[in-house]
Amino acid sequence: MNDIKWTRTEKRITRKAFDSAYERECADIAKRIRAKAERIAEPDDIWRLHDYITDKRNEIDEKYDYRYSVLIIVFARLIKDGWLSFEDLEGLAEEKITQIASIV
Amino acid sequence: MNDIKWTRTEKRITRKAFDSAYERECADIAKRIRAKAERIAEPDDIWRLHDYITDKRNEIDEKYDYRYSVLIIVFARLIKDGWLSFEDLEGLAEEKITQIASIV
Repeated sequence: MNDIKWTRTEKRITRKAFDSAYERECADIAKRIRAKAERIAEPDDIWRLHDYITDKRNEIDEKYDYRYSVLIIVFARLIKDGWLSFEDLEGLAEEKITQIASIV
Repeated sequence: MNDIKWTRTEKRITRKAFDSAYERECADIAKRIRAKAERIAEPDDIWRLHDYITDKRNEIDEKYDYRYSVLIIVFARLIKDGWLSFEDLEGLAEEKITQIASIV
């Protein structure tokens, strides 16, 4: 997958799709954090919230990898997880869409 | 300070004072977390909140050390930081109060 070529237009589309997915997932995490913060009733709830954000931070760091060599796999995972749709990828070459779909 | 003797009554007082300070400080942290969570406007605010809780967790872990050999120093720090008052320590031997006060 290392030798996939991305046109300038495709790079614009992938950047936008990637950023949108990141924003959406982080907005969801923020919503969950707010709900958990509201429900803090004892000290241990603070440390549980901290563990939750630590897990999410590691997951996000690992998942949002914008190297062109891995972008097909990253996009497939984001679609699977519901943070990206094929509509966000409109404009990419058909073969790339097919590759992503085959992984999803 | 290792050879300070604590009576059974004093141990009851120190335990209660220690737990109260911990509860108070954690309640304050929880309040700050809720305020920061409310103000999350972009992904980086999540990671900043995470850093904040990480710092507080390390600080709390280091500070709340319930070994009798270090309790005088721990209490002095908690009073200095405003999480404990001399009233919470009423019933301890005068020499211990004097030691704590001299550190504060």
